[in-house]
Amino acid sequence: MSWNSFGRVFRFTTWGESHGPAIGVVVDGCPPGIALAEADIQPWLDRRRPGTSRFTTQRREPDAVRILSGVYEGHTTGTPISLMIENVDQRSKDYSEVARAYRPGHADYAYDAKYGFRDPRGGGRSSARETASRVAAGAVARLVIPQVRVRAWVEAIGGDAIDPANFDDAQIDANPFFCPDAQAAVRWEALVDDARKAGSSLGAVIAAEARGVPAGWGAPLYAKLDSELAAACMGINAVKGVEIGDGFAAAALSGEANADPMRPAPPGTGGGPEFLANHAGGIAGGIATGQPVRLRVAFKPTSSILTPMPTIARDGSATEIATKGRHDPCVGIRGVPVVEAMIALVLADQALLHRAQCG
Amino acid sequence: MSWNSFGRVFRFTTWGESHGPAIGVVVDGCPPGIALAEADIQPWLDRRRPGTSRFTTQRREPDAVRILSGVYEGHTTGTPISLMIENVDQRSKDYSEVARAYRPGHADYAYDAKYGFRDPRGGGRSSARETASRVAAGAVARLVIPQVRVRAWVEAIGGDAIDPANFDDAQIDANPFFCPDAQAAVRWEALVDDARKAGSSLGAVIAAEARGVPAGWGAPLYAKLDSELAAACMGINAVKGVEIGDGFAAAALSGEANADPMRPAPPGTGGGPEFLANHAGGIAGGIATGQPVRLRVAFKPTSSILTPMPTIARDGSATEIATKGRHDPCVGIRGVPVVEAMIALVLADQALLHRAQCG
Amino acid sequence: MSWNSFGRVFRFTTWGESHGPAIGVVVDGCPPGIALAEADIQPWLDRRRPGTSRFTTQRREPDAVRILSGVYEGHTTGTPISLMIENVDQRSKDYSEVARAYRPGHADYAYDAKYGFRDPRGGGRSSARETASRVAAGAVARLVIPQVRVRAWVEAIGGDAIDPANFDDAQIDANPFFCPDAQAAVRWEALVDDARKAGSSLGAVIAAEARGVPAGWGAPLYAKLDSELAAACMGINAVKGVEIGDGFAAAALSGEANADPMRPAPPGTGGGPEFLANHAGGIAGGIATGQPVRLRVAFKPTSSILTPMPTIARDGSATEIATKGRHDPCVGIRGVPVVEAMIALVLADQALLHRAQCG
Amino acid sequence: MSWNSFGRVFRFTTWGESHGPAIGVVVDGCPPGIALAEADIQPWLDRRRPGTSRFTTQRREPDAVRILSGVYEGHTTGTPISLMIENVDQRSKDYSEVARAYRPGHADYAYDAKYGFRDPRGGGRSSARETASRVAAGAVARLVIPQVRVRAWVEAIGGDAIDPANFDDAQIDANPFFCPDAQAAVRWEALVDDARKAGSSLGAVIAAEARGVPAGWGAPLYAKLDSELAAACMGINAVKGVEIGDGFAAAALSGEANADPMRPAPPGTGGGPEFLANHAGGIAGGIATGQPVRLRVAFKPTSSILTPMPTIARDGSATEIATKGRHDPCVGIRGVPVVEAMIALVLADQALLHRAQCG
Repeated sequence: MSWNSFGRVFRFTTWGESHGPAIGVVVDGCPPGIALAEADIQPWLDRRRPGTSRFTTQRREPDAVRILSGVYEGHTTGTPISLMIENVDQRSKDYSEVARAYRPGHADYAYDAKYGFRDPRGGGRSSARETASRVAAGAVARLVIPQVRVRAWVEAIGGDAIDPANFDDAQIDANPFFCPDAQAAVRWEALVDDARKAGSSLGAVIAAEARGVPAGWGAPLYAKLDSELAAACMGINAVKGVEIGDGFAAAALSGEANADPMRPAPPGTGGGPEFLANHAGGIAGGIATGQPVRLRVAFKPTSSILTPMPTIARDGSATEIATKGRHDPCVGIRGVPVVEAMIALVLADQALLHRAQCG
Repeated sequence: MSWNSFGRVFRFTTWGESHGPAIGVVVDGCPPGIALAEADIQPWLDRRRPGTSRFTTQRREPDAVRILSGVYEGHTTGTPISLMIENVDQRSKDYSEVARAYRPGHADYAYDAKYGFRDPRGGGRSSARETASRVAAGAVARLVIPQVRVRAWVEAIGGDAIDPANFDDAQIDANPFFCPDAQAAVRWEALVDDARKAGSSLGAVIAAEARGVPAGWGAPLYAKLDSELAAACMGINAVKGVEIGDGFAAAALSGEANADPMRPAPPGTGGGPEFLANHAGGIAGGIATGQPVRLRVAFKPTSSILTPMPTIARDGSATEIATKGRHDPCVGIRGVPVVEAMIALVLADQALLHRAQCG
Repeated sequence: MSWNSFGRVFRFTTWGESHGPAIGVVVDGCPPGIALAEADIQPWLDRRRPGTSRFTTQRREPDAVRILSGVYEGHTTGTPISLMIENVDQRSKDYSEVARAYRPGHADYAYDAKYGFRDPRGGGRSSARETASRVAAGAVARLVIPQVRVRAWVEAIGGDAIDPANFDDAQIDANPFFCPDAQAAVRWEALVDDARKAGSSLGAVIAAEARGVPAGWGAPLYAKLDSELAAACMGINAVKGVEIGDGFAAAALSGEANADPMRPAPPGTGGGPEFLANHAGGIAGGIATGQPVRLRVAFKPTSSILTPMPTIARDGSATEIATKGRHDPCVGIRGVPVVEAMIALVLADQALLHRAQCG
Repeated sequence: MSWNSFGRVFRFTTWGESHGPAIGVVVDGCPPGIALAEADIQPWLDRRRPGTSRFTTQRREPDAVRILSGVYEGHTTGTPISLMIENVDQRSKDYSEVARAYRPGHADYAYDAKYGFRDPRGGGRSSARETASRVAAGAVARLVIPQVRVRAWVEAIGGDAIDPANFDDAQIDANPFFCPDAQAAVRWEALVDDARKAGSSLGAVIAAEARGVPAGWGAPLYAKLDSELAAACMGINAVKGVEIGDGFAAAALSGEANADPMRPAPPGTGGGPEFLANHAGGIAGGIATGQPVRLRVAFKPTSSILTPMPTIARDGSATEIATKGRHDPCVGIRGVPVVEAMIALVLADQALLHRAQCG
């Protein structure tokens, strides 16, 4: 089934292909009276925009967002917010090769198996270009939950991880890798450059944190906060793994080592308890505890590589294919604003759901 | 919000608390005409049943399932299938301690923060007992997709992993750990026994595989097969991480190393291409490729431990709490049939969704 | 598709057949902390219960409801509320006739066309017995919106309508017809008795009103309050028409005659404007205006009649069928508590949805 | 809550205000491989387009639809179909009067009560202009169910009904009233002209029929075919009543008079039984019987009238308001293509749902 909507009461629906006239998203269920203009959305899109450094695809897209509905005199009206981004740089390229044979690791074969045919231009609907719509919707979501600060960064590229001791929040937006470790950023420059020149690609790990999530958001079972975050992040192109809190590391721990003991908040701080650790990533039983929500996301290397790979053609015969043309040498980098957006979208939805049931 | 339903067209809703009179599940959207009796469900419940070895909780529950609707003369009618399991062993215990203070790592504090109060008896709704309902529903799901074989096993306990070279499918049901490596099973016996005697607990990693999933099941974006599987597994009690295919390991690979090259199927085998690797875990662009669907799930150690932990009481004051009474020293073990059930439930839903759109 | 759930955030799922062991409903999304016991639900079920007068089916069902989950120490916990009603009087009857041939006007043929077979015992899932589950769920819904008073009554039976001048609220529960006009109730006694003795049946019109619905509940487009009410009521067995406010009569009016002029509320009354008419039935643009919500529902005569009717057998051959056994001579009568329940369920859902978006 | 999506697996989401830059709809879940171009949609929009006769609003909108996604080389790809219609004739008018006071019968007051403010330009989101999006989506739905023919017409205006004896299908598109009775069309010309000149308005009844709906489409309970149709039609602007088959007339009948007896289909015709009547409107137990699906819809008179009406201002004070400017003297007329579209949308959804569950 085609299912292009996400969310339960704060919902969005995306549409559009890589090389169609435009892409877009309809955000539904947004509370009324929130100040919203294109200028609130554009900066987030600019962070994801391609072509801003030599480490991302060279497709040149201004990604200028336009609000088509749902806003009157600068405020949301409570009716659907339609956001549109025109595709500008659809290079007139020959897609007959991609149409003829399946690129390993791409969605080519799976789409054909499902639908019987596909739009081969730039990956069609399976293009990471769709994530611009998520970032635009996420910018709206952030305004719904102003008390929450969502932040993501790249933690490792091609297996080369940051040193947590070097973590500096100010660095994240100071280099083209969203890297909080200045030294790692220097290393990655060479690493990604080499991959780019070789027509190769690299995987990445992204870490993210949401601060200010009130204890109580979430749900006990099938809309658990962690379950929703997992769905949201695993649905991003190229993502193959999601961890909440300590994730897989927790599976190697004892109960004592994994505990998050509590003590009363110091006088005058108000609010909930103080936690002495956060192995749980801020979520227990599917519900936020008030600690920072923490998660990690694994991006595989882009499947688009210059090395010819054995594959089959649409007619079933054996062939080889190499992916020429523009692509991200490390698609995980531009995943940072997308992960942030998806987290914001989940949290905005959960905020409204919590209010629905618990007032 | 309370959200106790899962699925899009093949849907189920669970209900019930650990120490209420019963738990249950309503399965809706099941195709008509499928042979179904309690005997088709009970064996799967028996695999999850507590008290079958000293390595699981000593609560004695027969977990006898009863079909209350949706079946006539031994076949599904297409109307909702109501399954009920009575709670038998609700030991009359004093829950005042649990009601008074929050157990670190449990959902106690989060529930109170959300709802203002909670049912403290045996964890109430947050108890792993709820997973019996999932297993019952999963048994129905399996019958909807008889062409698929879903299989899970424990891959590591407390950081001690199996040796893939020793993998023997026949071993999985031959030891109390669902362990495919006979040597590891021997080691785990000591490992888990030590934890149990010490009143401690251990995390675990579960791996799972679904064979026979046809290429084409899944969805391109917000109901991606991997996204649905991630939501389904992350929603199981104690799960903190989900990987599809190579998962986080893929993030350290180059595009060449992560490729799944294809070649034509050998003559006479029919069907789709032969893949030379399966880093993707059988899913590309959210859609099944026809390869085995593979995933891994991280279970944290049970939060219930005998060692007293600093915590706060409901009145906000500092205190300590230790969890006495029956619990699983390694809740991941009994997670095996639950993971299998959730995979089957996702696949049955996707099978019907695919048929809806693509005939 | 089988779709046995209703509601968006306050949701319920019903299950069960007329002659299975039990029927039931799972209510999900209920706010926590609401006082709830069986005694809050039973009186509403008793109003719908069969066999209370000679004007309803003689099936004897105590319809005793049991709360299986979601309540702790007399209050809702915010987790799913499972309600079960055992079927007691499943008379051991020969259903071979019903299984062999299709009763005109019943769902027999349609079920077979859809599912390939059906449960013929007492109508199986298509039995009006399922409405007991709705009434039970509706009793919970009422507690979610204590500020609202939902009231329904029978306005006409077999074309014989009440005289609005005789309307007396106190009469509604004083006769077996939920008839607010004492004179009409006397006439109906003869009317329904004649139909009953003749093995015939009669249609009915039910009117309903919800007072205390705040202006603002509802939604502008695809979950319009009137649209949801229409879906809710048209989904009740035997219903063939729904009107909001003046309904079809409004189609014969001019804009001037149909207007609901407003003037300021008298000083000291607080709240919204005073309306000089209520042609709209309390809903404009899908949103409540604060006036009483008014609707009317048409019930067809029960299809079960003693007069033999031409029909076809399952093998396609021509035959005749008469419906012997117990049935309601006027199913609309017992529709009163069901209509009330469905209205309460819609309003509780809309109340929570409104709070989700608008705080 | 704002809820701007409709459908379960064949779903659409509309957006846009009367006087924003554009309106549109995203159609999701459409099967792949269906031939689709703007030319397949435009004719249906042209039927609904304003300004085509003096009997509709004089707003001049070309209503030119543009396909922005989901189609490749002239065929649907199975991904979301984004359709956009630019607003051209947003006459620069002074809306301060409408912004200042509430027009009785309009959604003005209800929107303000819900959202705290609203877009007053041309009715904003509550404008009937939104129905163009439905008609566009409905055109796609028709292509999903080519075996079904959906047809609607006006049956009465201002209480003046057609004579069924004069019914002539060919007349429906031969006059500006979608009137199948040529004599009534002549009468209505005067009737509507008088209302128009007087600045008044008239209600209307629309009847509709879907032929070719296979027995089996539909659902037994909360997605009953009749329930879905009721929701779909009651959600159209100005609709106050919906009847399936005989509707309210059935409530005055006996069971014998309301029966739809069956007999075997004549040899050689194949398919299902022959029905000797169709009181049920082609639906029994929520499921199609194979007979034509028949329904009637009541449209109230447009609330926009020249006669000043007592009302209140936003500040709560008493005032009067008259609606100047362009409007439909009988909004029901242009409701014909909208009702058809909604029926097609429900049936396409039910067709896919039926295929999901029953193959």
